[in-house]
Amino acid sequence: MRPRIQPIEEQWLEAARQRQNRLTKPPGSLGRLEEVGVRLVAMQKTLKPRLDWGAVVVCAADHGIAAEGVSAYPSEVTRQMVHNFLAGGAAINQIAGVCQAKVYVLDVGVRGELPEHERLITAKRRLGSGNIALEPAMSRSEAEEALEAGRAAAQRAIREGATILAAGDMGIGNTTAAAALTAGLLGLEAEAVTGRGTGVDAAGYRRKLEAVQAALRRAQRAMGDPAQADPLDLLAQLGGLELAAIAGVLLAGAEAGVPLVSDGFPVTAGALVASRLEPHLRGYLFAGHRSVEPGHTAQLEALGLRPLLELELRLGEGTGAVLSFPLLRAAAATFSMATFDEAGVSEG
Amino acid sequence: MRPRIQPIEEQWLEAARQRQNRLTKPPGSLGRLEEVGVRLVAMQKTLKPRLDWGAVVVCAADHGIAAEGVSAYPSEVTRQMVHNFLAGGAAINQIAGVCQAKVYVLDVGVRGELPEHERLITAKRRLGSGNIALEPAMSRSEAEEALEAGRAAAQRAIREGATILAAGDMGIGNTTAAAALTAGLLGLEAEAVTGRGTGVDAAGYRRKLEAVQAALRRAQRAMGDPAQADPLDLLAQLGGLELAAIAGVLLAGAEAGVPLVSDGFPVTAGALVASRLEPHLRGYLFAGHRSVEPGHTAQLEALGLRPLLELELRLGEGTGAVLSFPLLRAAAATFSMATFDEAGVSEG
Repeated sequence: MRPRIQPIEEQWLEAARQRQNRLTKPPGSLGRLEEVGVRLVAMQKTLKPRLDWGAVVVCAADHGIAAEGVSAYPSEVTRQMVHNFLAGGAAINQIAGVCQAKVYVLDVGVRGELPEHERLITAKRRLGSGNIALEPAMSRSEAEEALEAGRAAAQRAIREGATILAAGDMGIGNTTAAAALTAGLLGLEAEAVTGRGTGVDAAGYRRKLEAVQAALRRAQRAMGDPAQADPLDLLAQLGGLELAAIAGVLLAGAEAGVPLVSDGFPVTAGALVASRLEPHLRGYLFAGHRSVEPGHTAQLEALGLRPLLELELRLGEGTGAVLSFPLLRAAAATFSMATFDEAGVSEG
Repeated sequence: MRPRIQPIEEQWLEAARQRQNRLTKPPGSLGRLEEVGVRLVAMQKTLKPRLDWGAVVVCAADHGIAAEGVSAYPSEVTRQMVHNFLAGGAAINQIAGVCQAKVYVLDVGVRGELPEHERLITAKRRLGSGNIALEPAMSRSEAEEALEAGRAAAQRAIREGATILAAGDMGIGNTTAAAALTAGLLGLEAEAVTGRGTGVDAAGYRRKLEAVQAALRRAQRAMGDPAQADPLDLLAQLGGLELAAIAGVLLAGAEAGVPLVSDGFPVTAGALVASRLEPHLRGYLFAGHRSVEPGHTAQLEALGLRPLLELELRLGEGTGAVLSFPLLRAAAATFSMATFDEAGVSEG
């Protein structure tokens, strides 16, 4: 079941840099777009890369840990917000509309009924994860199934035309699970990765921190040092169903050679799992934005990524990822500029 | 000839904030997009603002100061690059293509012949500005004419559908003029605002710094303290023809109630002049990006603007402004989200 991802080829990166230095602009003057463009050349294996429509797969599930009072919102909001995604009323719908991205919703464990919808993909084997302070989030096979559901959803999005791929998240309680998973994967303390999420109050934050600490202690008893554990086992212990699905979305994108964009804290937790499973994934991944959630910076550092946007978002749904799609498109498009020779422009 | 700009109305800002707090997202979770959206509501005077196609007016002219060896490129590159813009081969063309912006070129003083083109607007009374180290850049009436040419170009862009407006710049030597103008307007030393521009070498940088110092001394002899001078007189002494045109583009945009986006160092010098002429302009202006040119930060601080993008660009042409258009569109679009009541989503 291990994915197959082609490593990014150094010879394409080098060919891209050489071409870039011939384009009609002072060398380096496109700043960070230049490094983005070089990587897109290597992914598409053409000196004139092109990005068209993108897609975001919003992975949704409930979390047993929500029972500990760790969120500013009740659990039913997960289902209500999926309704909202399907009706086109959420932030991700509006942002995707202006940034040319299709929105798919993948239900891997939302409690309650959802309407049928062309872009709703249903793959729920259980209604939400276990309460990770007390029990594993799910079994290893459930984690594998959720990951495969994410992979299948991404494959569909790509088949339907996506040339850039992001994962989004929806799940009340999921920044608690993402904090536990991130702390486990990176060997960090709960304090370093636990933030206010959607805006929990001080008492809720204390409960959240205690829940993350309890989950980490429980996982350590069950499996030894989490940082040394198999990433799928750790995902089963500390994750969430949608975090597993997110890892699958990103793995499938990289397998297809499609550029990937990470979003905020829960999605980047999924990206950490995916890149632990398949280190070559990193070559296809861009960081869309930096969230205000404090653990997000630790995740980005671990992945060696620098975010394209810093807009103080903390919404999730894939919003920060999709907002950066036009920057990737622009970076690709600059390779269609004229060279100094073609345009008859004098060099310095 | 003073422009008429409607002040942004506090009651619209307040109505926007109230609506924003009812939208289906945690309060504040859209970060900096929220402040952008609130301002767009007030400009468009509707709670469902909408931005469609944008335009960039690339203002081009030559500079007498280029004779001092202050640039990494020869003067002829101004004309060559305008050709490149008209042929669609420059960075701004590619970026505008993916960010849905029309590119207009306004020639207010390019040396040499240019081909006819649908989106080339010709308004040159002189071929380049004077060498500001030795003489005024232009007369006051030439400055006014260049400003009016910018205003007319922007009015045309708006008539032809632009709902977001940026100015761009092309002019070999123009970061030298922009440095002198910025130092004069803000009462700063030459060192604080003189950078490497398109990438001049160390010897060229010394010549550039000396040229800015000489221009400032000359202007001070001619008009007293530049920071106290009439902004159009200062523009005539230290500016450039395209910097005057840029001020006109921005003034006309604000007069029409259209959101404006600043680009890098030369364009923001024009924005400083425009906002000195008409302080209400500031209400319509967003900072598209922060350039690596050191004086740009001083300009943004003087305007009280925080840039949307920080991508280490230093290209000009309007590239950094146009790259931020999708962020403005997204900020507007979020006001079309469902409210908690409309979507039946529980509040925290």
